[in-house]
Amino acid sequence: MALTTTLPGPTTAQALEAILTGAETAAPIWAETTAEERASALHHVADRLDDAAERLIEVAHEETHLTGARLQGELKRTTFQLRLFAEMVAEGSHTDARIDYADPDWGMGPRPDIRRRLEPMGPVLVFAGSNFPFAFSVAGGDTSSALAAGCPVILKAHSGHPRLSAMTAAIVSGALEEAGAPAGVFSIIFGTESGRVALMDERVKASSFTGSIPGGRALLDIANARPEPIPFYGELGSVNPTFVTRKAAKARGEQIAHEFVDSYTLGAGQFCTKPGILLVPAASGMVESLADIQHPAPATLLNDRIQSGYVDALERLAQHPDVTPLVTASGAYDAPPAPTLMHTTAASVLADPQALIAECFGPAALVVSYYNESELLDVARVIDGQLTATIHGEEDDEIAPELIRLLSRKAGRLLWNQWPTGVSVTYAQHHGGPYPASTSSSSTSVGTAAIFRFLRPVAYQGMPQHLLPQELQDGNPLEISRRVNGVQQL
Amino acid sequence: MALTTTLPGPTTAQALEAILTGAETAAPIWAETTAEERASALHHVADRLDDAAERLIEVAHEETHLTGARLQGELKRTTFQLRLFAEMVAEGSHTDARIDYADPDWGMGPRPDIRRRLEPMGPVLVFAGSNFPFAFSVAGGDTSSALAAGCPVILKAHSGHPRLSAMTAAIVSGALEEAGAPAGVFSIIFGTESGRVALMDERVKASSFTGSIPGGRALLDIANARPEPIPFYGELGSVNPTFVTRKAAKARGEQIAHEFVDSYTLGAGQFCTKPGILLVPAASGMVESLADIQHPAPATLLNDRIQSGYVDALERLAQHPDVTPLVTASGAYDAPPAPTLMHTTAASVLADPQALIAECFGPAALVVSYYNESELLDVARVIDGQLTATIHGEEDDEIAPELIRLLSRKAGRLLWNQWPTGVSVTYAQHHGGPYPASTSSSSTSVGTAAIFRFLRPVAYQGMPQHLLPQELQDGNPLEISRRVNGVQQL
Repeated sequence: MALTTTLPGPTTAQALEAILTGAETAAPIWAETTAEERASALHHVADRLDDAAERLIEVAHEETHLTGARLQGELKRTTFQLRLFAEMVAEGSHTDARIDYADPDWGMGPRPDIRRRLEPMGPVLVFAGSNFPFAFSVAGGDTSSALAAGCPVILKAHSGHPRLSAMTAAIVSGALEEAGAPAGVFSIIFGTESGRVALMDERVKASSFTGSIPGGRALLDIANARPEPIPFYGELGSVNPTFVTRKAAKARGEQIAHEFVDSYTLGAGQFCTKPGILLVPAASGMVESLADIQHPAPATLLNDRIQSGYVDALERLAQHPDVTPLVTASGAYDAPPAPTLMHTTAASVLADPQALIAECFGPAALVVSYYNESELLDVARVIDGQLTATIHGEEDDEIAPELIRLLSRKAGRLLWNQWPTGVSVTYAQHHGGPYPASTSSSSTSVGTAAIFRFLRPVAYQGMPQHLLPQELQDGNPLEISRRVNGVQQL
Repeated sequence: MALTTTLPGPTTAQALEAILTGAETAAPIWAETTAEERASALHHVADRLDDAAERLIEVAHEETHLTGARLQGELKRTTFQLRLFAEMVAEGSHTDARIDYADPDWGMGPRPDIRRRLEPMGPVLVFAGSNFPFAFSVAGGDTSSALAAGCPVILKAHSGHPRLSAMTAAIVSGALEEAGAPAGVFSIIFGTESGRVALMDERVKASSFTGSIPGGRALLDIANARPEPIPFYGELGSVNPTFVTRKAAKARGEQIAHEFVDSYTLGAGQFCTKPGILLVPAASGMVESLADIQHPAPATLLNDRIQSGYVDALERLAQHPDVTPLVTASGAYDAPPAPTLMHTTAASVLADPQALIAECFGPAALVVSYYNESELLDVARVIDGQLTATIHGEEDDEIAPELIRLLSRKAGRLLWNQWPTGVSVTYAQHHGGPYPASTSSSSTSVGTAAIFRFLRPVAYQGMPQHLLPQELQDGNPLEISRRVNGVQQL
């Protein structure tokens, strides 16, 4: 396969129209493929991406400055994810099939025969993220789950890695075609305007996004203002607060400090799950430990926009009267920027949460000293919605149950003595959270449950056997788990 | 218990503030009750409503003009629904509990221990509907599912039955208090302004609505424009098209015509699932049959607003140049209005779908003659999102598979040789559909799956056993079905 590396220009209005028509045409065909057919196509996409790994990683490195090792791991994650969704649809539980047989004695009056399964919503517009050029981009999580669900995908490429996007899209399209998928089932578009126009188009039935709060909110507002509003799954911002109890600081303060530096500087701090705030007991020695830790060397950020946005956010934070520098690397505002820690107190955070609990997307974090452990609870009460919240504690910490209770209302994932960077793709994973962590707190962008964002239920009442979808036929020809008369059957 | 029947006035700003604070305070307490405690409280509410049935139905009849028999059936449905949600939460599958044990050999790299369950979103604002003064009102489906989910409810009463609403609310509040539920877990508010203010309040975390397209859209836009947008589950409008194939008309045209008249005039046509459009083959005799059928006597509509809205919509339809009266009752525009059928052709509907596929909330419907059966497919293609779509056909109808395929993309529920009025509360029921049938096509307002609209996932990573919610502990103390390492366990 010829892999182009020329810089793609913005998608023209004419090309976009053809892509939207193609997606609309492909939708019913793709929706009616069997789960096996879709699974096989996803496997083929994963295989083709693996085949092209060397060249993909090379271009990804050129465009994003991420290290080869990091990109290798990310591509592995990406193809693993495609295969996991393939396994999942083949297994069939994603249709949440339910059968209620007719029941003349049903409590509220005779019940007709009603059967329900989940069906694909239609063409999905995916806005790629910048910081995971594979896993949250062209062949990333939303593309995988939407294709697995039976929805065509229109992928709006991120401007941070256009050549890689075009290359990846060519591989995905080629593999889908080889696997017999209909034309139009996957397309890529470039340019802010084409994304905006596509989001307003009535042929698009759902959309997802990974990026900043202002960018995501603007798109959310467009999706909501449509004559026919559509679901918009945006993953926006998170500071991922980390709470260190007194006992944990006493038992393992030095170790926690080292692990924290590893986590917040990982990938030059460009993870949506970067622990951006670390709360530590004053006079525990942890602040001093953190100041002494040898920080990693400066690393080039993803692109110029990320670099300038990072410097702006860091300057705003540094100029706050209650904030003092802790790790005062001289190159904090350079490109590439030296990792930097700022310092304040819990009282200051509580006095001005809006200014101090703010995401700096890059290698910076705010260390917060508390004097009374109950301030941890107070901070948990004032924080906005978060992707993650982390507690470093001891098992007999008296504050733990209440802190967990408070944080469970604010965050999508709670961690205990671990670090939020690194989001495993699993069955139980949840990557989301209350606004502004995400625009849809009931939906995840990572893990097998992500498929539900692109499915909607359809009930069939009194339908003859041969006109029912296979998932709902008496004989259970697909041999899937179903809920029959309210009881789950394996 | 003293049941007031005085007319409640609009909720004052001061009272509303106390109610919002009360709901916020009750939220964590109610969220942490056990499923058994919530189930027991719901049973108690149902029992107390049944105890007060006679008086409730009397007041409901005075305010809504619905018949005693209809109201009796509706109250039965309502208390059945409360008990069904009680059974469901006691069973535990609504938490969708998932456990992924740590796995060093996981395909994308070592997997930490991750466990996930669904948790309540927080205070829910429910806007009551007018046409089901019990089942979609104070103690209706959304109240039941939100309370079952662990969310406090603020119920915005419908202006069509204020005394009944106050009475029902007193019973619900009293029963919840007797059952040991926290103060503030359920409150009622009156007045358009209080509903609007509550919807904008940051303490409200989700909202639901049953009513008209303009009313629902206005509230949806408010919910979306909040600094923290919240899920808004609106059930708006639907014409519930019904398609009669040539073969069915030939085999059972007369019977279908009679059943249709029964269905569209049921409850004076004031059901969201009323079949508002009936497509029949021209020259099949069905139009003539329909014209000859003795229609039921006029029945008073729910309230003056419904009456005037109905007359306006019917006049708009009647004035369309392609529409002719079919059943020309002289009292079609009177109060109470005589049931009325209008007539047009499929070609006219296809030429002007916006004007002709429009809901008339009341005892009217549009009969549509088609000349070529393929026009059924064309109409299925142009209709908006619907709560239901119905086919009357024969099992060997060649058009059926394609018609079902098209309609499954447009409607939440598809019926075969049955009628959409009457929505059974079951495990497999889906009452929703693409916009404007509902504002959230993945959510249902009827059936046990409705509980998911008020829940959000929370993942716990590396959490010690005693700090985990019971649903996620190794020993499975609640003995619920869980997905362990990707495999559902009963």
